[in-house]
Amino acid sequence: MNLIGHGKVEIVERIKTISDFKELHRIEVKRQLAHEIVSIAYGFLSPLKGFMNYEEVDGVVENMRLPNGVLWPIPLVFDYSQNEKVKEGDTIGITYLGKPLAIMKVKEIFKYDKLKIAEKVYKTKDIKHPGVKRTLSYADAFLAGDVWLVREPQFNKPYSEFWLTPRMHRTVFEKKGWKRVVAFQTRNVPHTGHEYLMKFAWFAANENQKVDEPRTGILVNVVIGEKRVGDYIDEAILLTHDALSKYGYISPKVHLLSFTLWDMRYAGPREALLHAIIRSNLGCTHHVFGRDHAGVGNYYSPYEAHEIFDSINEEDLLIKPIFLRENYYCPRCGSIENEILCDHKDEKQEFSGSLIRSIILDEVKPTKMVMRPEVYDVLMKAAEQYGFGSPFVTEEYLEKRQSILG
Amino acid sequence: MNLIGHGKVEIVERIKTISDFKELHRIEVKRQLAHEIVSIAYGFLSPLKGFMNYEEVDGVVENMRLPNGVLWPIPLVFDYSQNEKVKEGDTIGITYLGKPLAIMKVKEIFKYDKLKIAEKVYKTKDIKHPGVKRTLSYADAFLAGDVWLVREPQFNKPYSEFWLTPRMHRTVFEKKGWKRVVAFQTRNVPHTGHEYLMKFAWFAANENQKVDEPRTGILVNVVIGEKRVGDYIDEAILLTHDALSKYGYISPKVHLLSFTLWDMRYAGPREALLHAIIRSNLGCTHHVFGRDHAGVGNYYSPYEAHEIFDSINEEDLLIKPIFLRENYYCPRCGSIENEILCDHKDEKQEFSGSLIRSIILDEVKPTKMVMRPEVYDVLMKAAEQYGFGSPFVTEEYLEKRQSILG
Repeated sequence: MNLIGHGKVEIVERIKTISDFKELHRIEVKRQLAHEIVSIAYGFLSPLKGFMNYEEVDGVVENMRLPNGVLWPIPLVFDYSQNEKVKEGDTIGITYLGKPLAIMKVKEIFKYDKLKIAEKVYKTKDIKHPGVKRTLSYADAFLAGDVWLVREPQFNKPYSEFWLTPRMHRTVFEKKGWKRVVAFQTRNVPHTGHEYLMKFAWFAANENQKVDEPRTGILVNVVIGEKRVGDYIDEAILLTHDALSKYGYISPKVHLLSFTLWDMRYAGPREALLHAIIRSNLGCTHHVFGRDHAGVGNYYSPYEAHEIFDSINEEDLLIKPIFLRENYYCPRCGSIENEILCDHKDEKQEFSGSLIRSIILDEVKPTKMVMRPEVYDVLMKAAEQYGFGSPFVTEEYLEKRQSILG
Repeated sequence: MNLIGHGKVEIVERIKTISDFKELHRIEVKRQLAHEIVSIAYGFLSPLKGFMNYEEVDGVVENMRLPNGVLWPIPLVFDYSQNEKVKEGDTIGITYLGKPLAIMKVKEIFKYDKLKIAEKVYKTKDIKHPGVKRTLSYADAFLAGDVWLVREPQFNKPYSEFWLTPRMHRTVFEKKGWKRVVAFQTRNVPHTGHEYLMKFAWFAANENQKVDEPRTGILVNVVIGEKRVGDYIDEAILLTHDALSKYGYISPKVHLLSFTLWDMRYAGPREALLHAIIRSNLGCTHHVFGRDHAGVGNYYSPYEAHEIFDSINEEDLLIKPIFLRENYYCPRCGSIENEILCDHKDEKQEFSGSLIRSIILDEVKPTKMVMRPEVYDVLMKAAEQYGFGSPFVTEEYLEKRQSILG
C-alpha cells in the first residue's frame, strides 16, 4: 500500500497493508471531506497537510494567516460526530462510500465558534448564504491532523479524462513549452464572454513574451463538488470546455482542461484568494479574476474579489492576479468587448446567465456570438447522458448523479 | 528669442534676437533635416542633442551603440553640399522654407562610407531599398553638432491638432491617470486588424493592473514624413485614427493620438529599436510590434523585428516590447483572431493591404469587420480635402501637398 500525502512519518511506515488499515478505528466521511482529503493529499491545498487545529482555524478566521505566517483565507475543518470514539493521538481509518480512502493522525480535537467563522469568512451571518449555511451545519467538534490517501482515487467518466494531480499539471505545462500559465476558474458552461475573458487574460499573462511559439497557456480548472439546483451539471462543464478547445476556438496549443475537487464556499474575495493559492500549487503563474468571482447573491460587490488583493503583499502570493472587467457583446464593434476598451456602453448586450439559461431550456440554439454551436451540441448531449435530460442540476440529478470518485 | 534644445551653452546665450540670427552664415535645409531638427530639439530622439559626428556614426553603424554605450540603431547625419562655406567651430543659422528654424554649433565636418552605412543598417546594398537609396543619395560630407530651434514649430491643419512634445505627452498621460502606456506605431489607416492589435496590446501592457479605472493607455503615434506613391496620405492617417476613438471603437479613456516627425527608413529590426527609443522618450512603458514592423519588400522576414530584441539587454531599453502575431478575421469565431489563440487557420481571412486598397479605390465601403464605417467615411472626406480626391498618395499629392510645418 503506497500512502499518498506529505512527509514520511512513523504512521506511514506502520500502515503497510489493507489489513493494517482494517485494524484502525474507522470513520465514514461525507463527500466534502473525501474530496478535501484527496485535494490535501495531492497538494492542491499545499502547504496544508491535513485538517486545521484550533490555532490554525483561529489565525485563518481572524487574520487570514496560518500560525507560521502563510496566507490562508478559508478554514479547512474535519467536523465529526462526538458519538465516534476518537481521541487525540489516535490514528484512524477513513472510508468513503464504504471503501478505504485515507488514514488520519488525530492531533487535536477541538471546538470553535461556528458563527464567528461565518461572520469573518463570509462577512455575513445570513443563513441563506450557502457558505454560512454549510458552516453552521457542521458538527460541533473538529478533528485536526494530517491525512494520507491509502489508494489512488478512481474517477468515473468523464472526470477520469481530465484528472491531473498538481505534479501532472506541471509536467504537462513543461511538455507544452509554457513558461507562464494563466488559470481560469469556472463552474460554468462557456459562453463567448468566458471565452474572451480567457483570451484577453492570455494576452495579459503573456505580456512581453515572444510569440514564435506559445510560451503562455490557459489552464481551465473546473471546481467540481457540491451542486445546487439550477447549476450546470459538472459533466457538461468539463465536456463543453473541452469542446471549446477541440473545435479550435481556443487552440489546444494554449489550452488545458482539468479540475479541482472542492465544494464552493461562495466566499467571494476570500475564496478568490484560495483559488489563487490552489492554482499556484498547480504551477500556474497567473490567475484571472472577472466580475462576481466566487460570489453569490448580493453579498459581495461585483469587483470585491479584485479589491482584496490590495491588502495582500505580492510576496505572499506566488501567482499574479489578472483583473478584467465583465465582457459584453457590442453590436457596433461586432465583437466581445468590455467597457474599458469599447465606448459603446449604451448599445452593449450583456451576457445574462438567466437569459442564456432560458434560451437553452427552450432548446433554442443561441447565436454563435453567444455560445459556440459545438459547445451547445455537446451541452445537449451531456444533458442526455448525465443530466437525466437536463443540462442544469435538478433534484433528480442531486439524488441520482453518478459519483465523481469511484 | 527662446531657443529650444538641450543644455545652456554660451552660443544659446549669444543668439538672443532674430538680428543675431541673421548675422550667422545660413543654410537652407530639406524637409528631412528640418523635421529631424524639430525632433531632436524637443527630445523625441534623446539623448541626441544634435547630428552625429564620425565616432558616433561609426559606433551606431558597427555596434548599434553611441560612444557612451547608449543603444542607438540608426545614424542621424546632416549631409551638406561642400559648396557651403562652413568650417568646424562655426555657429550657423538654419532656415526651412526660407524662414529661420534653428542654429547649429558645428563641431566636426566629416565623411563616412555611405555604402557601409547601407549594408550595416539595412542589411542590403540594393538601391531599390528606400533606406539604401536615401543613404546613397546623401551629399558627400556631414556636419556634426548640437542644434537649437529658434522658434516653436507651427503646424498646418490637421497636424496642429495632434502635435504633442515629449513633455506634453507625459503631462497628458498623467492627466489621464495612466501608469502604463503602450505605443502603437503606424503609417496606416486603421483596419480592424490594427484596432485589435492595439486592443490586445492593451491587455498585455495592463497585465495585472486593476481595472476599476484605466491605468493603461494606448498611444497611437503616427510617423509623419516622406511619402511614397500608394501610401495613405498623412492627413487621412491622423484623422481616421482619431475617428476610431471618437466613434468609440477604442474608448478615449485609453486612447491618445499624436505624431513624430520622422522619415521612415524601412530599416526593419533596427528601425523597430529606434521606434522603441522614441516612444520611451515620450513616456511610454510598452511598445507593440506586430508583423513586418518598419519593413519593406522582402528584405526582412515577417517577425525579424521581434528577433532583434533577443540581442538587447532589458536595461538598455526603458520600454518593454510586446510581440504579437498578425491578426486575421476568423469566420468561425466571428471575430479578429490570431493563430496563437485560434486554431481555425484553414478558414482565416487575412487582411490584405492591396485588397483593402482596391476595395477603397472602387469606392466600395468595406464590411465593418474589415474597416469601421466611420473610419471609411473620414478617409473619403480626407481624400477630398487633402488628397486631391485620392486617399492614397499620388504624384500630384507629392508635388502639391500642403507642408506639415508652417
